[in-house]
Amino acid sequence: MSESNSVLIGRKPVMNYVLACITLFHGGAKEVHVKARGRAITLAVDVVEVVRRRFMPDVKYKKVSIGTEQLTPREEGATPTNVSTIEITLEH
Amino acid sequence: MSESNSVLIGRKPVMNYVLACITLFHGGAKEVHVKARGRAITLAVDVVEVVRRRFMPDVKYKKVSIGTEQLTPREEGATPTNVSTIEITLEH
Repeated sequence: MSESNSVLIGRKPVMNYVLACITLFHGGAKEVHVKARGRAITLAVDVVEVVRRRFMPDVKYKKVSIGTEQLTPREEGATPTNVSTIEITLEH
Repeated sequence: MSESNSVLIGRKPVMNYVLACITLFHGGAKEVHVKARGRAITLAVDVVEVVRRRFMPDVKYKKVSIGTEQLTPREEGATPTNVSTIEITLEH
């Protein structure tokens, strides 16, 4: 997740992440990777749609990857839980 | 949304939709379209991951489309709201 040109979606308002994407593109990035897991997946989709529809209509979806991450439990002996992930690659 | 071989994700438990997908494939479908909007997008990703990882590992993601739908407001004069959508095409 430490890859450059990536925006990791958390619990902040949509516009924070939209601005992060636009800033990366204005800084010369050709691609921006929007990543999220769990409930933030819906927010990630909102972010990329706002970027494209409201601010940068020439941005395209290059790729959308779906996956699962296993979270190691905090307590010993607990079963690990699976969480779905998404990575949306935007191309300018 | 009335297209055959499509599963529209709502508010039921994940396994209901997983079973719907598996039933379509067992009935001979080559492709199944999993569609969701708004908060159900996260659930849609969970559904396709469970189908692939737990039940049908030979199923592939053919395409993931992201979009926006405009909801016409119930009250007259209210502004229409946008809702994000996803359509994940599974291929057997």
